[in-house]
Amino acid sequence: MRNLLLTISFDGRDFHGWQIQKNAPTVQGVLQDALAAVLGARPDLKGCSRTDAGVHAKMFCISLKTGSSIPCGGLVRALNAKLPDTIAALECVQVPDDFHARYSVKEKRYTYEIHNSNIRSPFLAGRAWRYSFPLDAGEMEVEGQALVGSHDFTAFCASGGKPMVSNVRTISNLTVSRAGDMVALSVTADGFLYNMVRIIVGTLCDIQRGTLPKNSLSRILESKDRSMAGITAPPDGLYLSRVIY
Amino acid sequence: MRNLLLTISFDGRDFHGWQIQKNAPTVQGVLQDALAAVLGARPDLKGCSRTDAGVHAKMFCISLKTGSSIPCGGLVRALNAKLPDTIAALECVQVPDDFHARYSVKEKRYTYEIHNSNIRSPFLAGRAWRYSFPLDAGEMEVEGQALVGSHDFTAFCASGGKPMVSNVRTISNLTVSRAGDMVALSVTADGFLYNMVRIIVGTLCDIQRGTLPKNSLSRILESKDRSMAGITAPPDGLYLSRVIY
Repeated sequence: MRNLLLTISFDGRDFHGWQIQKNAPTVQGVLQDALAAVLGARPDLKGCSRTDAGVHAKMFCISLKTGSSIPCGGLVRALNAKLPDTIAALECVQVPDDFHARYSVKEKRYTYEIHNSNIRSPFLAGRAWRYSFPLDAGEMEVEGQALVGSHDFTAFCASGGKPMVSNVRTISNLTVSRAGDMVALSVTADGFLYNMVRIIVGTLCDIQRGTLPKNSLSRILESKDRSMAGITAPPDGLYLSRVIY
Repeated sequence: MRNLLLTISFDGRDFHGWQIQKNAPTVQGVLQDALAAVLGARPDLKGCSRTDAGVHAKMFCISLKTGSSIPCGGLVRALNAKLPDTIAALECVQVPDDFHARYSVKEKRYTYEIHNSNIRSPFLAGRAWRYSFPLDAGEMEVEGQALVGSHDFTAFCASGGKPMVSNVRTISNLTVSRAGDMVALSVTADGFLYNMVRIIVGTLCDIQRGTLPKNSLSRILESKDRSMAGITAPPDGLYLSRVIY
């Protein structure tokens, strides 16, 4: 049995997230069907992350064990012939037996795309969060540095999220940049709590529009109270953009 | 009765083009339903152009006469509340009685987006033509200048196109530019024959990959023979991007 690391990207709009579900299309379900057709057996898939309905991935990693001798390049081509055009197989490499797409992750990066405009665009429907209030990306990036480092992010975790052993995560990098009327926030961390990026985005936007005071992120972190942070930005603008092993 | 000029944009993937059809969703049909709800009467719509199934518009203009006294800004807001997120109302202005969205057009610009990559992107499905052979945008622009000016474009007209009084059109501008792995061709002209932009794109790509010889555009024009030109690029990458009155 070889252990393979498969990298894909997907447009999340048509899927109820990664994880397989009865009666709802998921990326795992569609990918498993395509792999079953290509490999002749239905492999067990380990995904690098859970993703919510409507969330996208520019890069998403899966490990799977297979007895098939198909070459990695051939697997990518065969998969792309089977997959719907909302999922693309990008790369496949053989990895050591103990490699696990989720447990071997060192860091992940999420990017959140905001369409900062009064005018909606049909080309960004489901792909970005439209936000009318004019945002200052430079200010947001400076403000966001209060979150960089190791912190208990309980205040930035959806209250419905399942309890973790620890809510401490380490953000190594947070950037906010503007290109035209698009504002993109990228956060790299060793792990993320439930809805963490979407609450960070909502909170930074609330600070911009004055609903929350400036320089309040450290105080919100210390409170460990979800109700102190801002709104949860919608899934539309969220992309898993990099997985680092 | 006021005569209004309404500007919209739309993602063409869900529509069988602009023009109303029985049993198929079209932009005109959906827009007419939304306008009927907002204005209280179903207006007759004059579109600036026919567009094929799957073709997009960053800017598409419609003129309509209405007895309603709704302010233009209010009409745009009310329409956006009714329209699906694949169509956006951008602007509305009152125009003279004799203005006609189609007959008053001076020039239109189409932009064709090519995803010049070996790797497909789920985010460009239906939005660009994926073309693997590496394209030189600068060369394509230089080559394309042979089409600028007034010419009989019969060789660049789909053979199924309905006969026109004249197949002479005037291209005032043709540019090809690259941004990352996207190559965009823009053509501005006083009018376009059926599939003209898609055949221009296919021909320039055929020249790049060597299926057609370099510097052959003038000869193709002179032939007035569709079979001398290159392939017809798919509708996916085509955007009506500007309408000039």
